[in-house]
Amino acid sequence: MFYHEKRLQYFTPPERPDAVYAKKLQELIGGSLGEMTVMMQYLFQGWNCRGPAKYKDMLLDIGTEEIGHVEMLATMVAYLLDKAPIKMQEDAAKDPVVGAVMGGTNPRDVITASMNPQHGIVSGGGAMPADSVGFPWNGRFIVASGNLLADFRSNLHAESQGLLQAVRLYEMTDDLGVKDHLSFMIARDTMHQNQWLAAIEDLQSEGLEETVVPKVARQYEKSEFSYQFWNHSKGEESGQGRWAKGPSMDGRGEFQYVANPQPLGPEPEAPQPDPRLHGTAKTPQASQSSASSAKGEPNVIDRMVEVIDRITPGGQQ
Amino acid sequence: MFYHEKRLQYFTPPERPDAVYAKKLQELIGGSLGEMTVMMQYLFQGWNCRGPAKYKDMLLDIGTEEIGHVEMLATMVAYLLDKAPIKMQEDAAKDPVVGAVMGGTNPRDVITASMNPQHGIVSGGGAMPADSVGFPWNGRFIVASGNLLADFRSNLHAESQGLLQAVRLYEMTDDLGVKDHLSFMIARDTMHQNQWLAAIEDLQSEGLEETVVPKVARQYEKSEFSYQFWNHSKGEESGQGRWAKGPSMDGRGEFQYVANPQPLGPEPEAPQPDPRLHGTAKTPQASQSSASSAKGEPNVIDRMVEVIDRITPGGQQ
Amino acid sequence: MFYHEKRLQYFTPPERPDAVYAKKLQELIGGSLGEMTVMMQYLFQGWNCRGPAKYKDMLLDIGTEEIGHVEMLATMVAYLLDKAPIKMQEDAAKDPVVGAVMGGTNPRDVITASMNPQHGIVSGGGAMPADSVGFPWNGRFIVASGNLLADFRSNLHAESQGLLQAVRLYEMTDDLGVKDHLSFMIARDTMHQNQWLAAIEDLQSEGLEETVVPKVARQYEKSEFSYQFWNHSKGEESGQGRWAKGPSMDGRGEFQYVANPQPLGPEPEAPQPDPRLHGTAKTPQASQSSASSAKGEPNVIDRMVEVIDRITPGGQQ
Amino acid sequence: MFYHEKRLQYFTPPERPDAVYAKKLQELIGGSLGEMTVMMQYLFQGWNCRGPAKYKDMLLDIGTEEIGHVEMLATMVAYLLDKAPIKMQEDAAKDPVVGAVMGGTNPRDVITASMNPQHGIVSGGGAMPADSVGFPWNGRFIVASGNLLADFRSNLHAESQGLLQAVRLYEMTDDLGVKDHLSFMIARDTMHQNQWLAAIEDLQSEGLEETVVPKVARQYEKSEFSYQFWNHSKGEESGQGRWAKGPSMDGRGEFQYVANPQPLGPEPEAPQPDPRLHGTAKTPQASQSSASSAKGEPNVIDRMVEVIDRITPGGQQ
Amino acid sequence: MFYHEKRLQYFTPPERPDAVYAKKLQELIGGSLGEMTVMMQYLFQGWNCRGPAKYKDMLLDIGTEEIGHVEMLATMVAYLLDKAPIKMQEDAAKDPVVGAVMGGTNPRDVITASMNPQHGIVSGGGAMPADSVGFPWNGRFIVASGNLLADFRSNLHAESQGLLQAVRLYEMTDDLGVKDHLSFMIARDTMHQNQWLAAIEDLQSEGLEETVVPKVARQYEKSEFSYQFWNHSKGEESGQGRWAKGPSMDGRGEFQYVANPQPLGPEPEAPQPDPRLHGTAKTPQASQSSASSAKGEPNVIDRMVEVIDRITPGGQQ
Amino acid sequence: MFYHEKRLQYFTPPERPDAVYAKKLQELIGGSLGEMTVMMQYLFQGWNCRGPAKYKDMLLDIGTEEIGHVEMLATMVAYLLDKAPIKMQEDAAKDPVVGAVMGGTNPRDVITASMNPQHGIVSGGGAMPADSVGFPWNGRFIVASGNLLADFRSNLHAESQGLLQAVRLYEMTDDLGVKDHLSFMIARDTMHQNQWLAAIEDLQSEGLEETVVPKVARQYEKSEFSYQFWNHSKGEESGQGRWAKGPSMDGRGEFQYVANPQPLGPEPEAPQPDPRLHGTAKTPQASQSSASSAKGEPNVIDRMVEVIDRITPGGQQ
Repeated sequence: MFYHEKRLQYFTPPERPDAVYAKKLQELIGGSLGEMTVMMQYLFQGWNCRGPAKYKDMLLDIGTEEIGHVEMLATMVAYLLDKAPIKMQEDAAKDPVVGAVMGGTNPRDVITASMNPQHGIVSGGGAMPADSVGFPWNGRFIVASGNLLADFRSNLHAESQGLLQAVRLYEMTDDLGVKDHLSFMIARDTMHQNQWLAAIEDLQSEGLEETVVPKVARQYEKSEFSYQFWNHSKGEESGQGRWAKGPSMDGRGEFQYVANPQPLGPEPEAPQPDPRLHGTAKTPQASQSSASSAKGEPNVIDRMVEVIDRITPGGQQ
Repeated sequence: MFYHEKRLQYFTPPERPDAVYAKKLQELIGGSLGEMTVMMQYLFQGWNCRGPAKYKDMLLDIGTEEIGHVEMLATMVAYLLDKAPIKMQEDAAKDPVVGAVMGGTNPRDVITASMNPQHGIVSGGGAMPADSVGFPWNGRFIVASGNLLADFRSNLHAESQGLLQAVRLYEMTDDLGVKDHLSFMIARDTMHQNQWLAAIEDLQSEGLEETVVPKVARQYEKSEFSYQFWNHSKGEESGQGRWAKGPSMDGRGEFQYVANPQPLGPEPEAPQPDPRLHGTAKTPQASQSSASSAKGEPNVIDRMVEVIDRITPGGQQ
Repeated sequence: MFYHEKRLQYFTPPERPDAVYAKKLQELIGGSLGEMTVMMQYLFQGWNCRGPAKYKDMLLDIGTEEIGHVEMLATMVAYLLDKAPIKMQEDAAKDPVVGAVMGGTNPRDVITASMNPQHGIVSGGGAMPADSVGFPWNGRFIVASGNLLADFRSNLHAESQGLLQAVRLYEMTDDLGVKDHLSFMIARDTMHQNQWLAAIEDLQSEGLEETVVPKVARQYEKSEFSYQFWNHSKGEESGQGRWAKGPSMDGRGEFQYVANPQPLGPEPEAPQPDPRLHGTAKTPQASQSSASSAKGEPNVIDRMVEVIDRITPGGQQ
Repeated sequence: MFYHEKRLQYFTPPERPDAVYAKKLQELIGGSLGEMTVMMQYLFQGWNCRGPAKYKDMLLDIGTEEIGHVEMLATMVAYLLDKAPIKMQEDAAKDPVVGAVMGGTNPRDVITASMNPQHGIVSGGGAMPADSVGFPWNGRFIVASGNLLADFRSNLHAESQGLLQAVRLYEMTDDLGVKDHLSFMIARDTMHQNQWLAAIEDLQSEGLEETVVPKVARQYEKSEFSYQFWNHSKGEESGQGRWAKGPSMDGRGEFQYVANPQPLGPEPEAPQPDPRLHGTAKTPQASQSSASSAKGEPNVIDRMVEVIDRITPGGQQ
Repeated sequence: MFYHEKRLQYFTPPERPDAVYAKKLQELIGGSLGEMTVMMQYLFQGWNCRGPAKYKDMLLDIGTEEIGHVEMLATMVAYLLDKAPIKMQEDAAKDPVVGAVMGGTNPRDVITASMNPQHGIVSGGGAMPADSVGFPWNGRFIVASGNLLADFRSNLHAESQGLLQAVRLYEMTDDLGVKDHLSFMIARDTMHQNQWLAAIEDLQSEGLEETVVPKVARQYEKSEFSYQFWNHSKGEESGQGRWAKGPSMDGRGEFQYVANPQPLGPEPEAPQPDPRLHGTAKTPQASQSSASSAKGEPNVIDRMVEVIDRITPGGQQ
Repeated sequence: MFYHEKRLQYFTPPERPDAVYAKKLQELIGGSLGEMTVMMQYLFQGWNCRGPAKYKDMLLDIGTEEIGHVEMLATMVAYLLDKAPIKMQEDAAKDPVVGAVMGGTNPRDVITASMNPQHGIVSGGGAMPADSVGFPWNGRFIVASGNLLADFRSNLHAESQGLLQAVRLYEMTDDLGVKDHLSFMIARDTMHQNQWLAAIEDLQSEGLEETVVPKVARQYEKSEFSYQFWNHSKGEESGQGRWAKGPSMDGRGEFQYVANPQPLGPEPEAPQPDPRLHGTAKTPQASQSSASSAKGEPNVIDRMVEVIDRITPGGQQ
């Protein structure tokens, strides 16, 4: 269960409205790597966590913090959209003298034509659960697999991309209010990168996971291919990296560089199409209804059905 | 530019058709963490790579390998859908005796009712670029930011989730053909987890990136908040982890546990709504057209426009 | 800013796992009218609210409650997926005797083939931010316009549909645990329908909104069409309703029934296509490059550009 | 079955082309609350209606009218895109003198850079089934539940939001043709708000539905929670509204304000993960294949399967 | 403007309900190649048509017919969902004797577990604007480019795929009502394939379009590559087709088979990353703020800006 | 299996960066008819092909070529985004004199405000798998049905629309580098239109498919409707085309023009709603739980279940 505190975790108002920047800032709210993503990702991971209590609690702590980050950014967008210029100025364009001196445009027109139109028409000056091109946030953006190492690696990646985007946005504005606001969020993202690196270490030191996740994989794999780098292009620049030689990162093998990889499988020879699906076959098929099924060697299911038919009173099919 | 080799990288046909398993296997083709995702992710990262040649080449090598993985799985799905039971058996249901003994169903009916209907109606027995519930693969599944550390962390996460899913699917079947086939893919995913861990090490040893990405973040952050864990819930289980005490992972700070975090920001007090947007204001607004704009202190843009008006022949607005 | 309380708002565990019901229950989590929708809708409406404090506070109260509803349902799904049957039983099918008596299936097979495959492969037994067919929740599901009457009507509708769906799901199970759990949520939805009806009354009694929203509409409308019902089909059953006669609901007009509506506009005669777009024109166009633009009467913008050209040193275009 | 009449329901051509406004107007065509939504929503509600004939007929009348509204707007967009400036003017930028006087831009450039690029590249100057940021209309935008009260509340909400958006767009232009055109549509939306309010009254006066929908809900709900407002935040502004005191709107209870709500449920303690899913458990699990299933108390389904096994010749699993 | 006729274009009720078939039939309603697609595609093409009147009229005729096809199918789905089995039978499963004889399932259970859950929970027994896996119809499914030849080819393709799907569905049922119903729709699809082939011929005989669309392409193309088939794989089976030799279909060239195609372009050498974007560069970049921009040869825009600065009072940047 | 060659199939760098054009060019990469679509469409058709080897090989040849086309365009976008102006110039706006002369804008501002913001924030100057409005590519854009004639018609349409779009983009730029680059792609699209026309001829000359696809359709259709054009609107312009008279294109019938088409079906009379779904019925239903099912004539399934019950020990339901 959750409680709301009316004050924001942190907030500095912008020096002035900026509708074009508001559009860009939406990326941090509803982008595939924005705050809605980490909020939902951490909450679902926490709700689905069956590991030690410290992980579940930690996930829900940070997930709850992130709801507040969406709140901070939504508030910032509302300020940035204040008195947004909604209408293009026809007047300047109509008066050729003004038009010439003004270049036929004025500051408002550039902004008006370039702001997210839904910020005016749909949300009436509020933030939206969408990214900087207006594409809505969706549930496929998050990951919660039940395996904490796989998920913490996803979290580390999300915070890395998120911080990168916050920094890019920081540098796209001169507004000291916005910059101050973002500097708090950047600090939190720094913490969160540190946090997930620490959590990965913690998980491994507890003996819960190993380098390659999930542990069971090594029982199933064709291990002769587990440490080979296949060079799928001409030229061997890719042979110069750490991944191409030396001990593997899991300490169980040695990297090999396969300079000229060859296919190990056959040319696929898929079975002929089922006549009932009217795909194109190798030879013209008599036009026929589905009643007559494809002849040839019967498959496993067909054989099973035949046996069942034989032992069943009345048979069928 | 790319070339195709008709033989598959690896392939073992299934022992028998299995349309329900074909539906599940789609997750590895078009799921948000399936082979289409890593294929497209590595190719776009490669095409967008401006770092040393070894990284670009390596990205395009593995991206090219992954096209072949989609091919292997698409071929496997075609085999699994061979002679898929397309139609429910009405006959059994009509004959109450057979119906009773058979439970009114037969093996085909369970399969028929549960297979992905598009495997029959739309693709005619072929694989689709969609996941196991039929949701189509889309471009928001991939990440290619231009920052290689952020991207390699994403790649490590994708291979971790992908291997986890492949293992789950391996355990969901008894078909030795499918198992053999997957054991090759599991081995490659093991390699690829190792590969991205190695690439991260390589990138840092080249001095190109540091622990927290991007490096510039530490110039912008409010550093007093960069190493604090905020406990947003009652109870302090989350204080027991590596993330709550000791030196931070980037070696630049010390983790702190904030047991009772308090908001640092104000209650937000957004400006009153622009009358032209007809949002609900604190007090009833006279019904008015947009011509009369909101009065009160003019914002920066308004002031600028006024000045421009004054110096412009003819003025405006 | 938000806080988490580890205990759930309400919870009764299910009597037994039920993976097929878990799939259905996802509709209440991530469906277009599920709890994620009302949670996000109320939070965004609250963050965007510029009306009297009581509305903003109320919106954030209920939005915060709804986060807890998502949590309750996500927990329920985790319980329902416990020990879900993941693999179909090939053994029964292989043994024709067992196969016949069992109808070739067993209880697990029906469940296995029909559960949401992502509940096994992707989430590892946890809830997902998606609906009952696996389609992900997305941001276009919510409405937050800044106009409280328009938004409260949306909220009333969402709670009406949500309660209807909860009742349908209540009746689809015999599990007393699930029923008890849902009976709490149904009570809250009853409250919330009452709440939005009350809020609509409150808003109007405060003089902030009128029957037709937004108030300004009546200044702009062609009022001769504001109270007419147009009968677009043969037969006049639609003339028997309250909407076809009597005073209009806003008290400003009288409903009229137009039995044989006729078009008021012309046949559209769109301008001929721009040759640079290579659309098909009424007559064959000479194949030409874009350099030669369409001739004919110049439009307003063209004329404006000409004037600017004339007064500008050096001219252009 | 449907018939087309070539003349439009209403139409006034714009005074001049305006490609940026055409982009905005798309919101009324393909936005989540645009004309395609109401058209499809009313048609599907009508096709799915099993109530008295007057409702079905009325739904199909208005749904058919709305097809014509999409037609009117699509025609308007084609006019607004006439002779759209498709290419930015490099010439001005190349000549520094002109560039300076012109601000390096000219009227066309602002328009060209800000119009929806698909209006040129994809539709060749025609309308698209998408909203003002280019996001396509989709079927999840509509609601048709079979319950007319729930659906009519959705319709009332859709017309409220739709009219609000039409008014905002009316105020964003000075083009008298567009304004006249929209004034007709605004009048129809006024009618349609009145119509749905009347239809709701009609439905209740027929005794078909009550205040809270569906009626059966009150049999299932935990009624002690059916009239409580829970205050999930600090401060009690939300206690001042109609929803917090007095008789409930359905006349069956009394609103109560719960100032300090406490959780009623336990801390969730989800079952330990199924080893076959390789989620992280509370304690390290031996790396094992899926063959050995999780031990512990068997669940209901397991027990049932055991019994079946015992009575079945040959047994299984 | 449109009118509705209450009678359906054609209709035969099904012999019996079949909820699983109803799920499949959704493909013809809301699939990417279903009736909603052709309906919307033809209407938008008609509204956007600027060619001779006969084409525009024909497009709107067939688009209007297709609205009626959606209506027919939506009605059929409502019939098929009549008395759909909504709840799984726990009783059989609980009684081990019945459970064994029944295979633990009964006919209803297979249907219940496999039907589209939204047909019960969301639409209450009605059709939905979605496909057979529940994915919603969306506006990107349609094509309306303004060029009639390009669009008619799209229409021919849509009717070909649509007929193929209708035939597959015809063969998936034994219900004589459904079969009769579909036989009408199959006849119409036959007409519509004929119609688009005729329309393509008509368009070319009017001199409006040529074989390769758009005509202007041949002015722009590097014609030495306009008739070459590039063999991108080992083996030359692809050399045996009509596309590899003989005169080209447009009569302007001769097909050539390039057996060993070689790249004509260079290895791409993208410019080094902008330091403000913090992508990974070839060599470690000093950690720096965005103020210091990338040095090196200035690009065209930079040079232009410099000149403007020099001639402008006060300069800038 | 696939190989990569580092050199591009063809490439000419742009003369200068152009971030607004880069946004437009995305349509050719990730648009519904862009290169990702044809790449994926041909690959999936090839993997799913069960016809003669020459078709499968040809499909995989062209699919492999198209991967390289995505590569070429992604590289072009990276060049066009070089040194993209990321930040609006506040300085000009602040200085009223400069602001006036400059029109308050400068060339960078128009570009900055109009570029795709994700090109800066998300991809760091690289291409994205999305279209020109930022909507992501998705798997529903492709078609692969197993029937080669249906699919080749889709391919012909895709190349027709793709070439049309490439030509429009060719004409939207003056950059000679971009133009040269596109002239190669236009040539390939010319080839590919020719290729699919040839492949269609080839398929028919091999006797594999006929004019109407699939062949079996003519066995199922109500043939009296197979050659009728229905005039769904007033006026008979649509009677003037080739589709309205003369022999049908498949040579099996004669086109007929039905000037006043009448419905052939009844008014639909759907069964009354299942009380368990709480839809609105014709008459008020007693508020009841789901236990009491709808009475009236039992349907087929009900009757079957009754019989089963009678013969089953213990009965049920």
